[in-house]
Amino acid sequence: MKLQIFDSTLRDGAQGANISFSVDDKIKVIETLDRLGIDFIEAGNPFSNPAEMQFFQRAAAIKLSHAKLVAFGSTRRKGISAAEDSNLKSLLAANTEYVAIFGKSHIMHVTDVIKATPEENLAMIYDSVKFLTEKGKKVIFDAEHFFDGYKTDAEYALGALESAHRAGAYCLCLCDTNGGIFPDEAYEITKKVTDAFPDTITAIHCHNDGGLAVASTIEAVKAGARQIQGTFLGFGERCGNTNLSTTICNLQLKRGYECIPEEHLPDIYESAMAIAETANAAVPANEPYIGMNAFAHKAGMHADGVLKYSSSFEHIDPERIGNKRKFLLSEISGKSAIYDKLKNYFPYLDKNGKEMAEIVKELKERALQGYQYEAAEASFVLLVEKILGKYKTSFDLINYKIISEQPAIEGKVDSAIIKIRVNGATRITASDGEGPVHAMDLALRSALSEFYPSIAQVTLTDFKVRVLDSDKATAAKVRVLITSANASDSWTTVGVSEDVIEASWIALTDSIDYALMKQ
Amino acid sequence: MKLQIFDSTLRDGAQGANISFSVDDKIKVIETLDRLGIDFIEAGNPFSNPAEMQFFQRAAAIKLSHAKLVAFGSTRRKGISAAEDSNLKSLLAANTEYVAIFGKSHIMHVTDVIKATPEENLAMIYDSVKFLTEKGKKVIFDAEHFFDGYKTDAEYALGALESAHRAGAYCLCLCDTNGGIFPDEAYEITKKVTDAFPDTITAIHCHNDGGLAVASTIEAVKAGARQIQGTFLGFGERCGNTNLSTTICNLQLKRGYECIPEEHLPDIYESAMAIAETANAAVPANEPYIGMNAFAHKAGMHADGVLKYSSSFEHIDPERIGNKRKFLLSEISGKSAIYDKLKNYFPYLDKNGKEMAEIVKELKERALQGYQYEAAEASFVLLVEKILGKYKTSFDLINYKIISEQPAIEGKVDSAIIKIRVNGATRITASDGEGPVHAMDLALRSALSEFYPSIAQVTLTDFKVRVLDSDKATAAKVRVLITSANASDSWTTVGVSEDVIEASWIALTDSIDYALMKQ
Repeated sequence: MKLQIFDSTLRDGAQGANISFSVDDKIKVIETLDRLGIDFIEAGNPFSNPAEMQFFQRAAAIKLSHAKLVAFGSTRRKGISAAEDSNLKSLLAANTEYVAIFGKSHIMHVTDVIKATPEENLAMIYDSVKFLTEKGKKVIFDAEHFFDGYKTDAEYALGALESAHRAGAYCLCLCDTNGGIFPDEAYEITKKVTDAFPDTITAIHCHNDGGLAVASTIEAVKAGARQIQGTFLGFGERCGNTNLSTTICNLQLKRGYECIPEEHLPDIYESAMAIAETANAAVPANEPYIGMNAFAHKAGMHADGVLKYSSSFEHIDPERIGNKRKFLLSEISGKSAIYDKLKNYFPYLDKNGKEMAEIVKELKERALQGYQYEAAEASFVLLVEKILGKYKTSFDLINYKIISEQPAIEGKVDSAIIKIRVNGATRITASDGEGPVHAMDLALRSALSEFYPSIAQVTLTDFKVRVLDSDKATAAKVRVLITSANASDSWTTVGVSEDVIEASWIALTDSIDYALMKQ
Repeated sequence: MKLQIFDSTLRDGAQGANISFSVDDKIKVIETLDRLGIDFIEAGNPFSNPAEMQFFQRAAAIKLSHAKLVAFGSTRRKGISAAEDSNLKSLLAANTEYVAIFGKSHIMHVTDVIKATPEENLAMIYDSVKFLTEKGKKVIFDAEHFFDGYKTDAEYALGALESAHRAGAYCLCLCDTNGGIFPDEAYEITKKVTDAFPDTITAIHCHNDGGLAVASTIEAVKAGARQIQGTFLGFGERCGNTNLSTTICNLQLKRGYECIPEEHLPDIYESAMAIAETANAAVPANEPYIGMNAFAHKAGMHADGVLKYSSSFEHIDPERIGNKRKFLLSEISGKSAIYDKLKNYFPYLDKNGKEMAEIVKELKERALQGYQYEAAEASFVLLVEKILGKYKTSFDLINYKIISEQPAIEGKVDSAIIKIRVNGATRITASDGEGPVHAMDLALRSALSEFYPSIAQVTLTDFKVRVLDSDKATAAKVRVLITSANASDSWTTVGVSEDVIEASWIALTDSIDYALMKQ
């Protein structure tokens, strides 16, 4: 059975701490969700500020292959007619086929928060839906606080839905606005609604304050809800909204519902990464299905088991949604996992030989120093080359000096002097830059370019700093990860030191060594 | 009704990526869980390596007020007697009253992974439990892959439990080892077990691969499970184990079960922070109940609503578990939230005055530059003082120069020279340090100490670096957060720049300004 998927990353998701989207960001997210086959994309509230309205004007030009844009607003204010309400007028001006409006369905919120009579609130709902449907809109009515409202006064909560229904609403959306309901309540209360309104689409909209949003959504679907609202990565205020990537994978892979076209399932992982990047947010490593550790195996025994029999410790095949199995190179990794990772690079390695034992030992020592190679495979390969005696340095550092000074000189605070030796020839170069690591990077490339012209094709694409023992404050160790790329490939290297510049230097030289080694 | 809580942070949790515990760490975690009133603490596998065994020897000396330590191992290997099995011998040597052993209950894993006959596996379970109970141990039998096993061959899966039960197991633990079951399946299958073994404690042990571990645990409890296994913060391999902090809050606050003594509920938040700190892991900001944003309000309207009527957007009172309500100072914060935050510091501010408008405008501009004051209230207060014209600088910087050089000089890579002016007097000082920011910090304190002796009492306790636009690589902007403390207080400041040293300088001077201002 087909379920409608309604993504609110750009509206409810943007309420999340640290989440905000420019107009360009919004368009990128819309294109990603559309390609994946998401049905509805709630893209903002045109009444909230002029930028949102401009966005809808610009959005009209986007060619979507499948998704429908939805503009979000509220029922009319009390005491005025729908036609006079400027929020409803903005919804019309947003010029989308579908609109979502929220209204009160919890009696206490009617009387205590908006201070309207019960009847007036029902009229606000009816009039607003009627006004919009008469203008040709398809209206999704978001019954705010519906579940808590139902528990307080079921008749009134159903009455709010009934008002929207009578006025011609396309869909009745049951909101767990506070995020506190349990899956069994979601089932029971949704069932009352789908029994009462069998001819209308019921939607479920949960928040994750109890860690139960995905489960409650699944139970509501069992009770007859046919539209799932959430945000693709679970972004949202407080603990977030229903995570759609998790919900889609659960319902489509395990319960046989069609959420998105089957052929797009393997695009879920990439779509999630693209949205996270646009939002400048990291997908948590342990996120179900799409996390970088969702199919990662650490314990020696488990990793051994998965190699023998993949369903031992995996609930689905990660390739089905575009993710990958992974063996973590940590201090308790079994030899099997390390060997499995290395055999692509060093096919002649003997799993039970002396060299493997040395590699395992060195990895453990490095782990104690704060090195982690889980995300830095290029540094891992270089380390193994060194252990195997196969490493050949591409240059020797004679010295570097990095100077940061205030006041700035012609706008530049940082400069670097680097002296290196390549095949007996020494070169000294200097550069300034945006920050000390940038200056160092430019000076080093300039010194090397004469000997290795190909490094001009290598660009640094990502730079991450993690403070390791942060309670040592400014004397703490830091781990720097640098990702570099050329036209065909991308690789990550790592450096650890109490000095952020030294840690960056280690990661930077590994990055260049790796690029040159691969040629 | 009392439920037993079984925490495996130190065993299954330590399988998580980036999670590891020293012996000291383990003892800290055990003390925290014990104080909170957790019933069982699974502390490791004494057979896995000598350090784990040493830990159990040392643990014998810990005085616990409530919790029972549990040693973890497996059923005997095939083809030998229980008495010959060195893993079972290690369990005895660990010297705990309770032991947990895992065994196979999924017929395919019996025949295909350990390649035993179905009968041999049942004998391995029976013999192992019998051996341990005869030595006076209380045995928790972990039926690995139980749910998937039940779906494949229910009779065999129940037979595995029956073997443990006949041999005198204290508790039968149903494991969803792959983390793929749904809450309704957890209910149905657990119900079969509690009906079949009404006189034994049934435990539920889920993994979160479908994002459903907490929900499945709650459903299993409804079906009669009386022991909940998980890890306090959800640590664990892949997507983690059942998050106990979430589960305890859900079941105790909303379903009336007693998981921990009622008087310890307000300690949940602090306990979570303590365990996270020991594990050197951050609690995700959006974590249910304990996340720093779990009760944070951003949207102007929501924040306004909460101020009027707290149950508008909160499912529980955060104080009940020791967390706090919070208003985020972000670019879309309503004036209400900003005002609410400021009125403690500036009680004379007029919410609708010109100064408030200026503050809101400045905050929006700062947000565009990458500043976030959500975690840096001290910098926020200083910013407002500046806007109000009440800020008085404690010193003027004339210049600084930070030098990082390789090779190191007497082991030090970094040195700083700082020249400042205080009340017309100039001082120039220098220092070396572990890293450039450390050198700068020491030089600045040394220059200021003559004028402000009290800054000797201020220590830097935390230092965090976040790369903002990381795709600009080494030219990216960084946000530095510095936390400082004196005997009575702790405060956090923020700096943003393309230069990590400049960003640190900004946060550092704010930190010192704030300390001096408060006096």
